[in-house]
Order: sequence, then structure tokens, then C-alpha cells
Amino acid sequence: MNGHPLVGIVMGSDSDWPTMQAAARILEEFGVPYEARVVSAHRTPDLLFDYAAMAQERDLRAIIAGAGGAAHLPGMLASKTIVPVLGVPVQSKALSGLDSLLSIVQMPRGIPVATFAIGEAGAANAALTAVAMLATANDALGRELSAKLLDFRARQSEKVMQMKLELPK
Amino acid sequence: MNGHPLVGIVMGSDSDWPTMQAAARILEEFGVPYEARVVSAHRTPDLLFDYAAMAQERDLRAIIAGAGGAAHLPGMLASKTIVPVLGVPVQSKALSGLDSLLSIVQMPRGIPVATFAIGEAGAANAALTAVAMLATANDALGRELSAKLLDFRARQSEKVMQMKLELPK
Amino acid sequence: MNGHPLVGIVMGSDSDWPTMQAAARILEEFGVPYEARVVSAHRTPDLLFDYAAMAQERDLRAIIAGAGGAAHLPGMLASKTIVPVLGVPVQSKALSGLDSLLSIVQMPRGIPVATFAIGEAGAANAALTAVAMLATANDALGRELSAKLLDFRARQSEKVMQMKLELPK
Amino acid sequence: MNGHPLVGIVMGSDSDWPTMQAAARILEEFGVPYEARVVSAHRTPDLLFDYAAMAQERDLRAIIAGAGGAAHLPGMLASKTIVPVLGVPVQSKALSGLDSLLSIVQMPRGIPVATFAIGEAGAANAALTAVAMLATANDALGRELSAKLLDFRARQSEKVMQMKLELPK
Amino acid sequence: MNGHPLVGIVMGSDSDWPTMQAAARILEEFGVPYEARVVSAHRTPDLLFDYAAMAQERDLRAIIAGAGGAAHLPGMLASKTIVPVLGVPVQSKALSGLDSLLSIVQMPRGIPVATFAIGEAGAANAALTAVAMLATANDALGRELSAKLLDFRARQSEKVMQMKLELPK
Amino acid sequence: MNGHPLVGIVMGSDSDWPTMQAAARILEEFGVPYEARVVSAHRTPDLLFDYAAMAQERDLRAIIAGAGGAAHLPGMLASKTIVPVLGVPVQSKALSGLDSLLSIVQMPRGIPVATFAIGEAGAANAALTAVAMLATANDALGRELSAKLLDFRARQSEKVMQMKLELPK
Amino acid sequence: MNGHPLVGIVMGSDSDWPTMQAAARILEEFGVPYEARVVSAHRTPDLLFDYAAMAQERDLRAIIAGAGGAAHLPGMLASKTIVPVLGVPVQSKALSGLDSLLSIVQMPRGIPVATFAIGEAGAANAALTAVAMLATANDALGRELSAKLLDFRARQSEKVMQMKLELPK
Amino acid sequence: MNGHPLVGIVMGSDSDWPTMQAAARILEEFGVPYEARVVSAHRTPDLLFDYAAMAQERDLRAIIAGAGGAAHLPGMLASKTIVPVLGVPVQSKALSGLDSLLSIVQMPRGIPVATFAIGEAGAANAALTAVAMLATANDALGRELSAKLLDFRARQSEKVMQMKLELPK
Repeated sequence: MNGHPLVGIVMGSDSDWPTMQAAARILEEFGVPYEARVVSAHRTPDLLFDYAAMAQERDLRAIIAGAGGAAHLPGMLASKTIVPVLGVPVQSKALSGLDSLLSIVQMPRGIPVATFAIGEAGAANAALTAVAMLATANDALGRELSAKLLDFRARQSEKVMQMKLELPK
Repeated sequence: MNGHPLVGIVMGSDSDWPTMQAAARILEEFGVPYEARVVSAHRTPDLLFDYAAMAQERDLRAIIAGAGGAAHLPGMLASKTIVPVLGVPVQSKALSGLDSLLSIVQMPRGIPVATFAIGEAGAANAALTAVAMLATANDALGRELSAKLLDFRARQSEKVMQMKLELPK
Repeated sequence: MNGHPLVGIVMGSDSDWPTMQAAARILEEFGVPYEARVVSAHRTPDLLFDYAAMAQERDLRAIIAGAGGAAHLPGMLASKTIVPVLGVPVQSKALSGLDSLLSIVQMPRGIPVATFAIGEAGAANAALTAVAMLATANDALGRELSAKLLDFRARQSEKVMQMKLELPK
Repeated sequence: MNGHPLVGIVMGSDSDWPTMQAAARILEEFGVPYEARVVSAHRTPDLLFDYAAMAQERDLRAIIAGAGGAAHLPGMLASKTIVPVLGVPVQSKALSGLDSLLSIVQMPRGIPVATFAIGEAGAANAALTAVAMLATANDALGRELSAKLLDFRARQSEKVMQMKLELPK
Repeated sequence: MNGHPLVGIVMGSDSDWPTMQAAARILEEFGVPYEARVVSAHRTPDLLFDYAAMAQERDLRAIIAGAGGAAHLPGMLASKTIVPVLGVPVQSKALSGLDSLLSIVQMPRGIPVATFAIGEAGAANAALTAVAMLATANDALGRELSAKLLDFRARQSEKVMQMKLELPK
Repeated sequence: MNGHPLVGIVMGSDSDWPTMQAAARILEEFGVPYEARVVSAHRTPDLLFDYAAMAQERDLRAIIAGAGGAAHLPGMLASKTIVPVLGVPVQSKALSGLDSLLSIVQMPRGIPVATFAIGEAGAANAALTAVAMLATANDALGRELSAKLLDFRARQSEKVMQMKLELPK
Repeated sequence: MNGHPLVGIVMGSDSDWPTMQAAARILEEFGVPYEARVVSAHRTPDLLFDYAAMAQERDLRAIIAGAGGAAHLPGMLASKTIVPVLGVPVQSKALSGLDSLLSIVQMPRGIPVATFAIGEAGAANAALTAVAMLATANDALGRELSAKLLDFRARQSEKVMQMKLELPK
Repeated sequence: MNGHPLVGIVMGSDSDWPTMQAAARILEEFGVPYEARVVSAHRTPDLLFDYAAMAQERDLRAIIAGAGGAAHLPGMLASKTIVPVLGVPVQSKALSGLDSLLSIVQMPRGIPVATFAIGEAGAANAALTAVAMLATANDALGRELSAKLLDFRARQSEKVMQMKLELPK
């Protein structure tokens, strides 16, 4: 995607990429410049801090962060920046992502993480929220994304309305 | 709060107001014009649809929606508008808000609800996220809110650093 | 199935059809006219409203609604009609349908959704309940369905009593 | 309530009555004749069987059954009658009604129990569903209850729309 | 197994037999006469009642009952007999047997069901408990089973002590 | 209670006694000699081992063991004796006894613990099961307890049948 | 406590102090020098990093960290130091500490946090583990703490053995 | 591994070895002498007691104990020794290790078990904690392990920073 990235997609490991690609695909589809990086809260904490600390200056408008298990990445990014952080709970092996969800969503008052559904659906929806945030701006990009979102919704409705069910005989 | 509302706070019942006031207080503190309304997904579905359908036209930049139990309000608002919807799970009686949380956060791909913690902390954080979204805009309000957010964070840190622990004797 | 539909089977996506077919099969077996439609609460909210709003006028006696995850379809249909809504939690990927169940069953006072077990068994039982409701009427159809239900139960008992267990050697 | 009972409200113990009264109050409000009895699945199993076995002959159109913990009453009633059984999970002490809910809703294919929310809201909604079932009949009672339900819904909406929120100062 | 059955193994469906065979195998191994039957609480409630009502007269010393989902079989058997009922939660599809476990173990005061682990381990342990109960009697069978149990334990310990671990290289 | 104890009631702490007294009261009521002891799995492991190791020799016919949280007492007693162990999950502070229940019931194949409901109801039912086990013996005590159990059940049914519900006005 | 601190007790807020004092009291009792500080992962992330980064140099032998909800403090401390981090889940309002527990214990491979029970018991046990770690050293302090731990255990056993149960009359 | 073992790895069955090998591999990698044994809490309780009772005398500095289901091994080892016990919840079949986790972590005040994540990650992290504990000692081994841990961390960070994400096209 060309252009200065407006959205950062970060994740704790490349094993989260199959989930987080759903976010990248949405941003591609809407033509929103983004970057995708592996930043581990626990294994590269300094990188996490640097990434978050630079986010505002680098003019990122949103950070989409995916993590699983004791998922600290979104919350710790949020602790270091006022750029909105959108958290995606990655499905974990033993507890199916319930641990990831609670670790991300139950943030204390004062440091928010906007949280989405466990897995790919959540990754896609985090990206759609990033797009919707950009679409609220009263500028050319905002108007363009607004129109694209309305079109996306219309096509999505249309697709549902075209679904056919084959009755049992 | 004077001025055209930029944020709508809606909730399913006035019994949710003690929780959702935490959102209102944050918006007051940041000087962001808002409105607060009771809109029940189940008891006033048409009002819900009208509210959501008019949100973009009325230039709302975010809707903060709180609900408990089978909490459908945030998701159904999101189904009718591209304005970002921020969902707050209200603590329920029997299941302590776990039902509210799952009903809000587990949205299907395509219609996002940004979800926050159960209860007052979540309401406050939803409002902080609305402020942060407005702060990403490159305009006077954006710059003002950006500065206020940085100041809010600094005071918050300061408050933690002033905390004293009385050791056991 | 010929005749004016008495029962509507609706679901959020054609991917729910393998589960919801269990309801259709029961209605086929009892000769109750029905229709099956994809109506997504989140992607086609207007269709949902229209479907529910017309249900009484179209003389539907019950709506069986299946949905997964943040399952808002049954509750939102119920918000727009007094025709009984029977909700079926579809098994979800990460949380195995616990999210679907809580999103459907924990409705607030005033707008009921009769809820059934997660998955196919629930879909079949929702249909059996629709049949049983029609069977309570003191008319020809009621008497016919009553007799058929008693026969269904008798055959079901018989089948259990014919089960043989092969003892370990 | 005068007249032959059309709905039976049963519960495992008189300690469930504070919850189940919410069902009785709805039936009173709609003028639907009902009876209320203590029938324990575990302590009076024969009474349970007799009650269920006689339900159709006694012309009951629905049985509302409330129980807590290992809540077997609704399912066992359903095993002995084709009259629709509406189950209400009573909030339990240790597990807050999650045990009651799962014991009632997870019925096997073939014997349905329509299940409602944990506690009073569920009891009220079970009664509203009983009313709605009676309202589907094309007779004088059906038309009367239909009109009353529409009125109940309208007043309920009105009440929500009259709710005022006192803004924080 | 020859001889008058001392233990009854019952289950809701022949699909529970792969789990419940673990109980049968233990009884075979200890030479305790038993019978195995399909008795469904919901589909053959009269058979359930007859089976339980005759248990004492038929001189059954224990009933091992396995069921899944809304598992009412053990509790309803217990409601109709004073013969000890040992309940085995069968692993269910959506909720992995947590529903089965809570439906069996959370019995109200007055009607006990002794409950064991979810699945095959629970079935085997229910049978071992039946053996241990018979072993407490001060008669020939009691002494024989006591000796066999001590031997079973000793062999079991021995087997653990023979386990070898291959170290990673 | 006079006479050589036939049942041992043990618990991890005297704070469990309010729960476990429900077991003692049942044994008092049935005239079954018992003893009650504090034996902590974690704080007095040797006492636990000695108690279990001597149980058979001391002619205990059942051990009722209550514990909360990481509740290891019932399982470790069972590991050291073939006398039947009946486990009672004591309600814990944070997790309401779900931890206690799972720690007791999920025993591995080979070492059974018969488990009962969380809290007082479970304690009473464990005692009723101990009585029922003694009642299966074909001796004077067995016949006496059998008669007493049938009487207990009859009075219990009677009590339920006498319950009156005051209808709402 | 005099002397250079060997153990750091940190917590996210002074509202965690009532829980974490249980750790301080154990260290007082064993005479292990410690310090207690409020360090919030989310509100003072830089302080957290500095604290952890200096821990080894300051010769801390263990860090006991308590936090609730989306509890990131223990894991993030662990990410910045090789000094053992002992995590204590503080009981949270809505979810009773289950969120705290999963957020702390489900750490990914490579960055360990030793986790203890929810609430005060966990805080005390974290401190006992810190003492036990110091006691493994083959030096004067190690031998002293070893002896004290054995004495602590002995007194604890004694206390259990002195517990008296008042039998019901 | 040559040398007197400093760490004991124990598990309830050889079926836990695939999980617990992750601990052994870490100790191999750091050159810490260890032993690995099958010790079942329930099937070889005397062996468990002997192992724990000898641990201090044999100069073990830590015991890593893995178990699943009603996982009593770590807690019972801890009850018999002051050597730090590190507990690893092995993923169980029906409940995915949630039972194992709660059985291990919810220890009562006075007898600590340091608990780690469910499964292999937890086993590896328990071993890393054992290494970190040895690394706190101010001796040659301590300094060597300290350096190795810092190097391990550095390589781990490096590995994350080398991860490449292939963008969707």
C-alpha cells in the first residue's frame, strides 16, 4: 500500500498473522495506507514502547493490535500513546481466546483499548473501525472513506439478500 | 454542555445511567459536546433505528452505547450507521456482565462495535476513546483535545506516583 | 411445503443453514407449512424489521430464529412483533455457542425470546415447540398436530427401548 | 384469577415463588386464568408425573416451570406432556443460575423446553410468551390478548421514551 | 456376567455406551454382576420411573447413570429410589460436558447423586465406587472385593512406577 | 453420637464447619455414629495420610470430606484408602466454589471421589449417600436405615405438598 | 523493615494494598527486607520499565506484583528483568478475579510469571515463595530462612491440629 | 544431564511427558542438572510423600510438577517440602485445562504453588523460573545462569525482530 501509513497493525508473533491479515485485507480494500509489524509486548518491550511513543508523531491515526493468551500488547501500547488502540483477541489453544479477550477488554479506567471479537472477525472489524474513524473527518479522505463504507455496507446487505437456502426434501 | 453534540451517549434504560454517567463526566471534563438518551433496542426499536440512521447526518462522530444482559443496543446501532459505535457492557445481576460483554463484543465480520470493560471503567474509557478519535483530526479541536489528553495522562501518572502505602506494623 | 407458511425459519447467514435445517425437517415431518430465509440482524437490519413487522399480518404463528456469536436476530425480531420468537443459538467457533446462548436467552423483562439448546438439537426442538403451540388450538389442525405429536413421542420412546448394548467381552 | 386455568405455573419449592410471582403478575395483568403450584421434580416426582400427564386433558395451554441448580423440573414435565413447557432458571446461590440455565436449556433433540432468562425477567417473559401463544389463536381470546399485547408493548415503549437523565454537573 | 445383577448401568442413549463401557469393564474385572440398559429420562420417563422404583426390590446395590447436556437421568432416578445413584457426566458437543456436570452434581438438599468426572474416567470411577461400597460389607463378597480393590490399587501403583521417560537429546 | 463411628467427616479448616455441619446433622438424624475432624491436606498432610490409612482398619464405612479452592483433601484421602470418599466442594470466596468443585470431581481414572453439590446442600447429600450405602447392607442396621430413609423421603414429599403460595393481588 | 530490600512488592493502585499487605506481613514475619510501591502498568509505564530494568542491579531477588482486571503489571515487569516475578491476581469487581488470573498466568513461552491464588491468600503465598527462594541459598540467610520456614510450617500444622469442632446438638 | 540434579521434574503420568518435555529442554539448554520422574499423587501417594520429604535433603532447589484434571500433585508436594514447587497445568480433555489450572493455582494461604500457563508454554516458563531462581544466587552458577538468561532474552528479542510478514496482495 503506497503512502504514509495511517494505521499500524501490530501483533505479538508472526503466528498471529493469519488472524491479523483480515485487518490488512480490509485496509487494502479501502485504500488506507498501513504498515504491519511484529512487536511483542513480552519479548520486545522496548520496541513496543518506541513504537507507541512515536505513533502520534508519525501521524498514525489508529493502532490495531492483536495478541493471544495473557494479551498485554494492546493495553501497553495504549499506556504509551493517545492514538486510539484497537485490540484483537487472537484465539488461544487451551482457552479458545477467552483469556485473550479478558486480558484485552478489562482495562482499568483511564487507559482505553477498544476491543473486538476473538479471531479473524475481530481483526476485520478493528480495521473497519479504523476506516470509520478516518471517515468521520470532514476532509477529502473522510468523504471518500465515508462513501466507500456506505458502499461496503450496501454490497454486504446485497450479498445476504442473494443467499439461497436449499430446502430439505 | 453547549454546542452541537459530537458524541451521543445512549443506553437501554435509565437504570444504566449510574454506569454511563462515567462517560458523560469524561466528555464534560474534556469539553466535548454530547447528548445522553435512553434508547432501548428491545422496547423502542424504531427509535433505535431512527437514532442510528440520523447519526451521520446529525454529524455525530461517535455513539457510546451501554447495555446489559442480552445487550443488543450497540450492535444494532452499528448495523444502521457507519458512525463508530463504542459499546459498554453494563454489569448484570445474575452473570455479572459476562453476558453483556459477550453479547456486545462477539459481533460478526462486517459490523464492528468497539467494546470496553464491564461497568463504569468501560464507560469512562469509551468516552476517552471518543475524545482520542476527535483528537486525531488535524484541526483546532483535534489539537486542543490532543493537548488535553496528554495533560490528562500526565495528571493521571502523577496521581499514581503520589500514592502512599502505609506499611503494616 | 405447500400452503401459506405458518412458521418462519430465519437465520443470519446461509452458513447457519446446516444447523437450522433440523428445524425445517421437523416441520416437513409434521406437515406444517413454513418458509426459510436468510435475514441478518446486522447486515440487513431493515429486512429484519420488515420481516418482523409483517409477521402478524402474514399470519405467521411462530418465528424460529437462529444466530451465532453476538446473536441479536431473535431478540430484535421479538422487539418488532408479538408473534412468538423461538431462538436457536448456533455453535460459534471460539466460544462454542456460549456467547450465542447468552446473547439470546438473557433478554430483558418485556420482550421474550424462547430459547433452545445450542446447535441442531435446539433447532429441532424449536420446531417441535412451534408444532406444540399450533397443537394447543382447538381446531382441525390442532387436533391433527396433537395426534402427530403423541405419535412422534411414542415412536421416539419405542426407538430408545429397542436400543441394544453390546457388552464388553 | 377466575375461570379454568389455561396456564400452570409450577416451581420446585416455595422459595422460588418470589421469582415466579413475576410470571403470575403478568398473567393477572392480561387476565389469563392460571394456577400456581409447588411441584418438586426430586422430592415429589409422582406429583410431577401426574401433573404433566393430566395437563393436556385439563386443557392447560402452557406450563411455566421454574427451578434452580440441577433444575430438572421443566425437562421432566416436558417428557410427560406435549403441552408447551416454558422453563425459568432460578438464580442459584453458588453459581448464580448458570447451573440452572444449562440444566434447563440444553435439552436433547425430541423433548423441547423453551427457556428464558435467569430470574424474574425470565419468569415475566415466560408468561408473556404464554400470552403470545394464546394470542396467535384466531378466536375471541386470541384477538383480545393480541390487542392487549400490542397495548402492553406501546405502553412499554412510551415508558422508555419518558425516561429522563439528569446530567452530571 | 453371571448372577443376579448388583449394579445397574443405565444411560440416556446408546451413543453414551462408548463412555459407559468403562464402567462395565471395571465391574467385569471385579466380577460384580451387573446389567446395562438404555433408559432415557426424557424419551422414556415411565421406564425410568419403573426402573428406579423396582431397584430396591430387585436388590440393586447401586445404579450408575450416565447422561449428557441437560442430564436429568441420574437425579430423576435418585428421586424414585433410595438405592445410591452414581452419576456420570457424558462429554457434550458444544459445552464439553460442563452442562452435563452441573446438571448432575448441583442436586438440591435431600436427593443425592454421587457425581464423577466428565467422560470415561468418571464412568470407571463410578464403577470403582460401586465396588468399594460392596466391599464395605462384612461378608464374603465384601472381603473378596476388598482384597481385589487393594490388589487393583497395588497394580495401579506398580504400573506408574514402571513408567519410563525418554529424555530429550 | 454414641458408638463406634461408621462415618468420618473431615474438613480442611474449622471455617468449613458451618458448611459441613449439614452432614453431621443428617447423621445425627439417622442415628449413624460419626466423628468430625479437621484434617488439612496441605497443612497436615501426615495426619491426612494416617487418617486415610487407618480408615479401613477402624471400620469406617465412608469418609465425607469437605474442602474449598484447590480442594485436594477428598482426592488425597481417596488415594490412601479403599473406603468410599464422598467429596463436598465448599463455596470459595472469589470463584464461588467452581474451583472447589472442579478440583474434587475431575479425578483421574482409578481413584474415585463421589462428589456432591457446592455448599451445605452437598454436605447434607453426602451424608444421605453414606446412610444409603449403609442401608444397602442386608443386616439389622441396613434394614433400619432403609426404613428411616423411606420415611425421610416421605416426610420430605409431604412437606413440599403442604407448601402454600400466596397469590399476588 | 531495615536493610537493603531483597523483595519488591508492587501494585497497580493503592486500592490493591489491602490485598497486597498480606505479602508484606509475611515478609515482616520472616524478617526479609522489602519495599512496597505503587507502579501502574498503564498509568505509569515508564516507572514500570525503570523499576524492572533496575531490579537486578538493585539486587532485588524477587518482585511480587499484584494487579486486577486486565492485569498487565506482572507480565510487563517480567518482560524487562530476569529477576523472578511473582504475580498476584487481585479480585476484580465484575468477574471476581478470573480476568486478573487469566491475564497474569497465561504468559507466552519465554517470559514467565509465577502466579498465585486470587486475593490475599495468593499475596501471602507469593511472599512465602519469595522466602522459600531465598531459603534455597547455601548461606547464612538461606539457612536462617529455611529454619524459619520449617518452624512456620510446624506452627501452622499445630494450629490446624488444635482446631475444635462443636458438634450440633 | 550430568551432575547432581538441582531441579526435579515430576508428572502424574507418562502421558504428561510431551507437555513437560518443554521444561526439560529449557534445563538442557541452560545446562542445569535435573531429573524427570513419574510420580502420581493419586496412584503413588507414598512415592509423592517420599519424593517431597527428601527434596530438601537431596538439595533440590526447585520442583516442577505437571498434572491435569483434579491436579493435586503440585499442591501435595508443596505440603511436604519447603523447596519451591512450580506447578504446570496440563491441558485436560473435556475442560481444556481450566480444571487443572484452578486445582493448582487456588492454593490456600500457607502452602504456595507458583503456577504457570496451561500446557507447554507453562512447562517451559516453569523451567525458566527455576533457572532465574538459581540465577539470583551470588555464586558462580548464579552469575553463569544470569548471563545465559540475559543472552536467552536477547536472542528471543532478536528472533521477534527478524520476523517478516508477507502482505496480502
